This record gives sequence, structure tokens and C-alpha cells, in this order.
Amino acid sequence: MRTYRVERPEIALKDEPVPEPGPGEILVRVHAAALNKRDLLILDGTYPLPARPGVIPLSDGAGEVVAAGPGVTRFGVGDRVMGSYWPRWHDGRLRADLIDQPGCTLDGMLTEYALLGEQAAVAVPEHLSWAEAATLPCAALTAWVSLTGGQKLLPGATVVTLGTGGVSLFAVQLARLLGCRVIVTTSRMDHADRLKALGADHVIDYPATPDWGRRVRELTGGQGADLVVDTAGPATIDQSVRAAALYGEVAVLITRDATSDRLEITNEAYASSLATLRRVFVGNRAELESLCAAVAAHELRPVIDRTFTDPHAAYRYYREGSPFGKVVIELAPA
Amino acid sequence: MRTYRVERPEIALKDEPVPEPGPGEILVRVHAAALNKRDLLILDGTYPLPARPGVIPLSDGAGEVVAAGPGVTRFGVGDRVMGSYWPRWHDGRLRADLIDQPGCTLDGMLTEYALLGEQAAVAVPEHLSWAEAATLPCAALTAWVSLTGGQKLLPGATVVTLGTGGVSLFAVQLARLLGCRVIVTTSRMDHADRLKALGADHVIDYPATPDWGRRVRELTGGQGADLVVDTAGPATIDQSVRAAALYGEVAVLITRDATSDRLEITNEAYASSLATLRRVFVGNRAELESLCAAVAAHELRPVIDRTFTDPHAAYRYYREGSPFGKVVIELAPA
Amino acid sequence: MRTYRVERPEIALKDEPVPEPGPGEILVRVHAAALNKRDLLILDGTYPLPARPGVIPLSDGAGEVVAAGPGVTRFGVGDRVMGSYWPRWHDGRLRADLIDQPGCTLDGMLTEYALLGEQAAVAVPEHLSWAEAATLPCAALTAWVSLTGGQKLLPGATVVTLGTGGVSLFAVQLARLLGCRVIVTTSRMDHADRLKALGADHVIDYPATPDWGRRVRELTGGQGADLVVDTAGPATIDQSVRAAALYGEVAVLITRDATSDRLEITNEAYASSLATLRRVFVGNRAELESLCAAVAAHELRPVIDRTFTDPHAAYRYYREGSPFGKVVIELAPA
Amino acid sequence: MRTYRVERPEIALKDEPVPEPGPGEILVRVHAAALNKRDLLILDGTYPLPARPGVIPLSDGAGEVVAAGPGVTRFGVGDRVMGSYWPRWHDGRLRADLIDQPGCTLDGMLTEYALLGEQAAVAVPEHLSWAEAATLPCAALTAWVSLTGGQKLLPGATVVTLGTGGVSLFAVQLARLLGCRVIVTTSRMDHADRLKALGADHVIDYPATPDWGRRVRELTGGQGADLVVDTAGPATIDQSVRAAALYGEVAVLITRDATSDRLEITNEAYASSLATLRRVFVGNRAELESLCAAVAAHELRPVIDRTFTDPHAAYRYYREGSPFGKVVIELAPA
Repeated sequence: MRTYRVERPEIALKDEPVPEPGPGEILVRVHAAALNKRDLLILDGTYPLPARPGVIPLSDGAGEVVAAGPGVTRFGVGDRVMGSYWPRWHDGRLRADLIDQPGCTLDGMLTEYALLGEQAAVAVPEHLSWAEAATLPCAALTAWVSLTGGQKLLPGATVVTLGTGGVSLFAVQLARLLGCRVIVTTSRMDHADRLKALGADHVIDYPATPDWGRRVRELTGGQGADLVVDTAGPATIDQSVRAAALYGEVAVLITRDATSDRLEITNEAYASSLATLRRVFVGNRAELESLCAAVAAHELRPVIDRTFTDPHAAYRYYREGSPFGKVVIELAPA
Repeated sequence: MRTYRVERPEIALKDEPVPEPGPGEILVRVHAAALNKRDLLILDGTYPLPARPGVIPLSDGAGEVVAAGPGVTRFGVGDRVMGSYWPRWHDGRLRADLIDQPGCTLDGMLTEYALLGEQAAVAVPEHLSWAEAATLPCAALTAWVSLTGGQKLLPGATVVTLGTGGVSLFAVQLARLLGCRVIVTTSRMDHADRLKALGADHVIDYPATPDWGRRVRELTGGQGADLVVDTAGPATIDQSVRAAALYGEVAVLITRDATSDRLEITNEAYASSLATLRRVFVGNRAELESLCAAVAAHELRPVIDRTFTDPHAAYRYYREGSPFGKVVIELAPA
Repeated sequence: MRTYRVERPEIALKDEPVPEPGPGEILVRVHAAALNKRDLLILDGTYPLPARPGVIPLSDGAGEVVAAGPGVTRFGVGDRVMGSYWPRWHDGRLRADLIDQPGCTLDGMLTEYALLGEQAAVAVPEHLSWAEAATLPCAALTAWVSLTGGQKLLPGATVVTLGTGGVSLFAVQLARLLGCRVIVTTSRMDHADRLKALGADHVIDYPATPDWGRRVRELTGGQGADLVVDTAGPATIDQSVRAAALYGEVAVLITRDATSDRLEITNEAYASSLATLRRVFVGNRAELESLCAAVAAHELRPVIDRTFTDPHAAYRYYREGSPFGKVVIELAPA
Repeated sequence: MRTYRVERPEIALKDEPVPEPGPGEILVRVHAAALNKRDLLILDGTYPLPARPGVIPLSDGAGEVVAAGPGVTRFGVGDRVMGSYWPRWHDGRLRADLIDQPGCTLDGMLTEYALLGEQAAVAVPEHLSWAEAATLPCAALTAWVSLTGGQKLLPGATVVTLGTGGVSLFAVQLARLLGCRVIVTTSRMDHADRLKALGADHVIDYPATPDWGRRVRELTGGQGADLVVDTAGPATIDQSVRAAALYGEVAVLITRDATSDRLEITNEAYASSLATLRRVFVGNRAELESLCAAVAAHELRPVIDRTFTDPHAAYRYYREGSPFGKVVIELAPA
């Protein structure tokens, strides 16, 4: 079978035998896999969790069960499944002994046939294509946990998202399912119409409005946002706190960037807010299942910018283009 | 001014002077008031909280501020307001020393001009008519607190409501704002289309399906409902527990009826569920404000069955008819 | 090795080979095992979960790891461990596919050597004897989850426990660790001093005070209890609701008894309370670990009524005596 | 009567008539008042909330009700009461329209007779002296809300407190009531024994251990602290995050100091923790009442460093000394 493996700073195509599922394992014919920023960091060697040399890349993928090992009860041949970002974290809280990620410390999804523990797989909502299903395990789940993992967000509450990355677009769509109003900041006002079509009520041009926290307060009658999904960290955290309501939350996804290794929050930002800062790091299998229940009930369609059949081209486009939506690799039959 | 007062078992029209607002009070020209079951119980003398003799009836009403007493800061003349069901319970938890209800222990809204403490009033969402606004303080708030006062209900979760009473219809509409699926039981299958138009995904004919708890489980892939808003109590509580998911909740609104003074839950009902039973008793002002924020953001329109200008006719219709939606009294200028 | 197996209505001694740990399994030399009411129900054939014929009885036991299978990382030879009541429920919520209990659907702890999945074992707090450690997995965890699984109980809050069963005694001790005041009802006032020594602030003679709910309100300045750990169900639930504070909770552990198959709660009971009824069914491994952390930090000592070396004598005493504290079987080396 | 008023940068003694209680007000003969850091900032003109010129200083005080205005029901003559830090914030969440503080925007407690709204007063636990009662409204409540306002802290959990300020000492004592282990950092190891007597399990000499976050992890078997009550902010926040467990919390009380106007949290600090940062700003009346219930149940005694009868001397000592415990002013009868 065709399998890709990490040979930093690249991925390399291999021809390998199709594996056999052991006890509790399923063999999945992967139809699509999706890229996340962490997959670039892994190739660059800057991801905080050290990758296993030669690991199969990509955490996100979806496919069909083609064989099941002894004792498997959750899935059968023909079932459509996706993998979990944290295959050993099923429910409750992450623990140090559960830290393992496909595409990093475990083999991932950029392969024709992947072996998954049955506990690490989740059923694909019926209305989704393979490419769409492949986008959920990391970016969509991060957005979902940002929205649902902290304080209750009621219909009529306001959510702020930053830019047009994968997590942010899902956060716009999912916040709408919760009945929330959504304010998006972007430097690409040419995207404003697409953001509104996804569910944004307001789009703020942040280069033109560097004090966008104040703008969020104006747009919310002085209240501020109930949740800011902060996907940028050092560059945005202070404005995120300024944007937050008195008891608002900031979901903190990123704690360093190319120019800074820290979050700085000024006393002045806190003057208008007692905002809670809550760290989010994707989520567990139970949360992925509840995301899928929501996606299924609303027949939500993930935003895909482009699909590729050549993984090298996909990586290149993902790194150099500025996609609006997910970049997906389709693993067509040879 | 025209004022009605409780003279059990009736209401009686009085001609009284328009009152003057004292410190912290506002004078409200009432445009509409709405009936709730408790208003019948008060006339019948069976409401648990003893009514003050001669009290002005009805907790629910909306109108325009026409004068403000000294020290008022929350509202000004011309503002559109509704009253709170618990005028002294502003936030947090109900306490014994806050138990006072308009139309019962305090003068209510069936009067041309009502005096309200400014802390007991809430702004009316802009898109609502007077009649629509008058329906929110009791029935809609009860539905809102049933949905939002317990466990987090995520989009894709399932809510069950019973019948077509005021609270239940609001629960259908509001559950949709939270992104939930809704299953409604009714003995009036002729209402099925209207229920579906409001947001019901499934309507169960409960006289034909006495074991409707099992039917709810079937409709949810065996999971059961995440929340049952039980508006009937003794007659339904056992099926509500059967309908509930393993960690589902039953919001308990009623604990006796004409035929029973108790809730009975069989061991067999609990066999399929570890459901939590949570009592709901309307809600506080902060919750009424969050309801209004949701209603405003989604321009939700309450269901009104009929409006009357003659309060006696309204009471009669509410007691003897079987309205689908709220019964409202409009207090037109004389 | 000596192993006991369920041969209803008795247990039977067997001589069997010591098993070998497979991948992810540990072999435990069991030093002590403890009895719970469910173990009698299993022999009687009245336990709701059908027991596997010939299963090794008892969920609760503690011992020393004597061998570890391939891939085991959580424990090593010489470690002191106890088993989980729900070996496959590690964290978060119970799910239908995790329902398996040792001593019932899985082999239990009444055997010289038990095989446990390493994920199903928890380290024994250092200060505990084998007999003491064996008492924690079911009764203590049930008490712990009753106290900690619902609303936050703050120091100064009041907890009510019923009688002198295993769960209730642990609830008294553990409630004290949370800084709560404890009121105990009992028909055995001769136990009052021992209950007070364990931490009870008040002991109510319930046969002499059938309306003990009212007495709890008196003892709490009219407030009622913040939590009632109801270990009797049909016979006590109505008084438990009467005893509960306006926003109190009743942890419901039992939903039928010899005389009734249902819980009945009168409207009058609810008149003084908006109590939440929360079902408790032991707890998961993460909760057992947090219990052990609390037990260790406070060097809490479980109450043991008597230890036996003959399991038949232990069962007989547990069924016919009325022990104050746990009944433990020590599995001395042959 | 003797009354002090703020005449920046000092307080000035006045002779004024005893006020009369209006509707809903009580007149309190103040027996003791306590100093907090904010009282110095108010004299210095650096407190974020601008003080009313000539306001009576000090938020914290306790005394006896000597007269009650019309309509007062919560208290009667002879009752022992303390005032609330936020007299208009009774329960639930702080709102912009409730922001008023005695000793700042409202008259405070440094006066022989103070007028309080009855809703702003809370009963004093019986075992407390006047001086002890006077210490609760600000510092003790801040500690209480830090401990109880976020995630549930279970017995056996670990709390870290910083230094020997008023909030920190209360946090040590109150954390013990919750059954927690307590680790204290200090630069005054000569205080170590007193800290241990109050309830500290470990005392860390932070000047000798600048990387004290790591030391906290060592002392907790690598887990980290469940809660850090960070009373210093800019100087300590990064170590607080390092000290926190994977899902730990940092209660953030201070967001600037003499040398920095911001909190900085490094990416490296977050590497060992997904800690939530939760802002705390004293608390509401319901929380003050629950604090008093805990203090009463455990007969907790606040730590008082020194009492003064001369307010000027008290202010001077509080500013220039380095008290271990609260500084209290007794307002003896003239």
C-alpha cells in the first residue's frame, strides 16, 4: 500500500504491506486526510511534542472499516469512521499517561490503510463526504471544545473569532448552532461576505481597527463578548481580554508565535473585564462524538478550500497559500 | 383608572386613582397582560402561596413607562418594560425572604397603570408587540430556566416537551434556539403540523403510545432524551424518567394534579436511566434578561392563541377552551 | 490456588491454577476482599445486572502485584493495588458499553490471585492495611461520589446520612473532610456515640421521630440540609426531600426495597424544597483515585466491623448480623 | 459622634450628628473596623475606582444594630452585623450598575455610627469578637471566593498561597476547612512556624527558590497544585502557572504592581499546565454569608496582628510595618 512517512523536513512515499488488525483494532481504508498547522510544525521540528522519526503523518483522516480484529464490538466492516486526535483519551480529563497523538508519537492517517484501536475511532455523520469528515478531528473539535468546554453559552450570547484559519471558521459555524451572535476579526475584508454567509453577524477589519476590543464592546451595547476564541495568542490576547464581557471567557489556543514566547495582558485590559482565560488543547473522544452529533443534527458542512491527491502539493499549498477553509488530501485507490 | 381585583372566585372591575411612583419606582401604562394556570388556581384558592385578598391579578404584563420616581436610573419615560415574576429575586438563588409574586402577594398587571420597582422591570425586546411581550415573564421564563438552568444542553441534544401548554410551546421554540432536536408528546395529533412548524422534529401521540418513554428512546437511537421538560408531574413523571438518557435530566414543574398528590417513579423507570430530577420554579430577573437577549437575537415570536379586551371573557376562554398558545388581555385606552 | 465461585445460592471453593497476565494485565495476590449488599443480591439472583454463572464473587479487594504482562506501565511488581468497581469506566460518564462489574459479569476478588487490567487498578494509600484498602472500591466510592458528584458542598454545609450501613458510615467520615456538619438518622441510638466519634454532629432517633425531615430543618435553623445521602429509597425519600434545603440535593442510591418498587415524593415534601434528586451508581476510576487522594491526605481509617478468614462465615455474618462497619475477608496464604 | 473622612492623603476626624435610619436602613454602632491595601491606595489616589471626596473610609467593620428604619425585617436592635464590600451586589454576578464600595464611593465604617442598607449587612458569627468580625468583609471573602468560586476543590487537593498578606493567611486557614493541603511561599522563613500552625503543610522560601513552581510540582508528586491563589500578579503569575496542575486554576487577584502594568505568562509555563486563569474581585453578600457559615461551623479565628484605638497610628503601622495578620481599629465609646 502507499504510505507516507515523516522524513524531516519532508514526507516520503513508501510502499508497505497492508497491516493486520490485532485484538481490539480495526483496519481502515483511508479515503481522505486533512492538514493542520501542527503538521507543518512537526515537519519543521518545532512541535512541542517530539515526533517519532518515520511516523506516518496527519492526525486527521476518515475512511471505511475493511477488517476488524478479535474482540472488536464498536464497529464492523463497512462502517465509516474517523480517528481521534488523542486516541487514548476517551472521556473526562487528559492525563500525562494518555498523551499520544497520531501523526506525531503514533502513526497517523496519510496512508492507504490505517490501523486504529476501536476505542480511538468515531462514526462519521451520514451527510458528510470523506473529505468533509476528515476535517473534524482536530480543527473542528478544537472549536467545539472552545465553545462548549467552559461556561454555558446561551442563545443570544456573543462569540468573537479571529481570522479565517481552520479552527476559527468552524467556531463561526458551530457558534451559530448554539444560537450565538458571532463577530469575526480579519485582515482580509475581501472575505467578509463569505464569513457572513457562514454565520458572522459582524466582521471587523482589525488592521484598520487595532483597538478592536473596544469595537466589540460597541457592537454588544457595551457588554463585551461572552467568549473570545483566541487562535493567535501573543498578538491578540490583550485585545481579547478587552473584548470580553465582565464575566467573559477567552479560550486560549496558542501561547507563542514567531515574535513572542509569551502572553501579555495589561492591567488596563482587565479594567473592563474579569475575564477567565481557559486553555484548550483539542478534546477527547466523547467530545468528538458530541461534535459529530451536533454536526449530524444540523447537517453542517465543513468549509474545504481545496482537495489534493498529491500530498506534497497539499502541504505546499497549505504552507504557502492562505486557504479559506481546510486543505484535504484524497487517497484515491491506486 | 380601570383596575381589576381578585374577589374570589372572580375578578372585579374597580375605578381607582392612578398611583404615584415612590422612590425607585416606575409607573407603567400596561398595554397587555397574559394568563397563566396559576391565575386560575389563585381564583380557585388552590395556589400554594396564599393570595392577598383584593390583590390585582396577573403576574405577566407589559407596558410603557409613563413616570419615574426619585432615584430611578434603570428606565426612563417612554421605555417599554415587562414585570418580573419574582420582583425581589434579581439574581442567584431564591431565598425565603424574596418570596413575593405579583397577582398573588403583590399587586399584579391587570390594571391600566401599574407601579413597579425599577429593579423588578426588564426591557422589552424591540421586535415584540405588547401582547407578545406580556407572555414572557412566567411561561417563557419557566421554559428557559428548564432548558438552561441545569446541565449544558449542546446542539444535537434531544429535548422532550409534553403537550401544548404555554410552557411547553415556549420550550419547543427555545430548545430550537439552543440547536436541540425536539420531541413533543400530545393527545391532539391535529396540532402536529403546528408543533412541527414551531420546531418539533417528532410528535408522539401519547394516548396511542402510553409507553412513550420507550418511543423517545427509539427515536434517539436508544440513547434517550437529554432533557424532559415535565409539565404534568404525577401523570407523566415515570415515563419522563424512562425517556431520559443515562445522564439525562427531568425538569419537574408540577408535583400534584387533580388525581394525585405525589410523584411516583418506579424502579423499572430508573433501570434505563440515572436521570436527575431538577425542580424549576420560574426564574430570576437576570434569567428573564438572558431570555430576552435570546428572544431578541433570534426575533422569536411567542405563540398567541387569542387576545381579548374583556378580561372576564379571557379568563373564561383560558379555563374552558383548550388554547394553543397564550391567552392575552389587551388593556386599550378607555 | 484457592478461588471461590458463585454457585447460587452459595459460593463454592475451587482449586485452580494461578493465571498468567496477558498484555496490559497485572496479577494480584489478593490479601483482603470486602462484602457489599450487592454481593448478597447476586447470590439471591435479585441483582439487576445478571451475574455470569460461576463467576468469582466480590467487587472489592486489595492486594500486591506479583506479575505484570507485556506493555504494563502503570504498576510494577510489589505495588499495592485495589480493583475498580467499573474496570472499564475510567473517567467522564458511564456508557452502556462500559457496563461490566467484577463479582458479577467479570471475575471478582475472592481468590488468591486475581487478574486485573492495569487500567482497572488503583494504588492503595500507604497508611491503609489490606483489610482497610479492600473496603474502598464500592461503599466508600459511592459515598464519595454522593458527596462530590453534584453541587459544590462548602465547609459549613449540612449533610444528612441514614443509618449505619457501609456507605453511610463512609459518608459521615468523608463529609467531615469536606468541612461539613453531619446529621445521622438511626434506629440504633446505642450507636450514637460511635457515630459522633466518626464525625456526626447530631444523631436523630428516627423511629421516635418519623417526621425527621422537620427535625433536620430545626437543627439547621430552618434551612434544611444541603445534601441528603439517601441509602434507603422507598422508605425514606419523602423525608429526605422534606429535609433538603431550598436548593438542596438528595443523592438517590436505592430505588426499591422489599416492600416497594418505587420512589414516592409528595407534593407537600416539595413545598419546603426545590431539591434536586441525583442518582448515584458508584463511580469511575478517576473518582476512586481522587477518593484515595483524600483518604491518604487525611489518613482516614475505614470502619471495619469484623474480619474473617472463612468466606462462608463472613457472608453469613454480613447477612444475619447487623454490622457497624465493613465485613472483610482476609485471604491468608494457605 | 466621631467620624473620620478622607482628606487625601490623610484621614481627618470630624464631629458629626448621629444619622437617622431611613426606610430599609439600620444604624450600626461600629465597634471595630479593619484596614485593607485598597484603603491605602484610596488615600494615595491610585485606587482604580475613584473615591468620593470626603468619604468615610474603610469597607470593613462590625458593630451592633442600635436602630432600624421603617420596613426593616432582616435585623433588629441588638443584632451583631458586618457590612458588605459590595452593598448592592447581593447574589449572582456583579453588574456595572452595582459597582459601589463603602470607604470609596459610599461612606464606610470608620465612624462611631454607620448607616447600612439592611440588605448590605450580614450577621456576625457568634464566636467572633468585634475585631475579628471586622476582618471578614474584604480579605477573608476574597480568599473564600478564590477557593470556592471556581472548580470544585476536593479534600486532598493542593492549594498554593503566596506570602503573609491578609488574603493569603485567610486562604491558608480556609483551604484547611475544605480539607486541602496547603503550600505557602514566603520570603520570611521566620514566619514558617506560624504558617504551619495556621495550616500550611509546606513553606517554600521563594527568594532561595525562584523556580518555586517546580518545587510545588515536586511536593505534589509531579501533579502540581489544583489552585494557586495569586495575590501578587506581575511578579508571580508565571511561576503560578508553572505550579498549577494540568487542569489547575490560578485565582488572579492583582494585575499590576509597582514595577509592571501587566501579567506575562511564558509559553514554557503553559507547557506543564493547561491552567485556567480566573479573576477574583472580592464577592457578593450570599458569598459573605456562606463564608460566615463556614467560619461559624469551624469556629475559625481570624489572625489579627494588632489592634489600635488611634486610626492614624493604625494606618501608619499598616503602611510601614509588615504585619502578619489584620490591622484593626477599635472604636471604643468616647
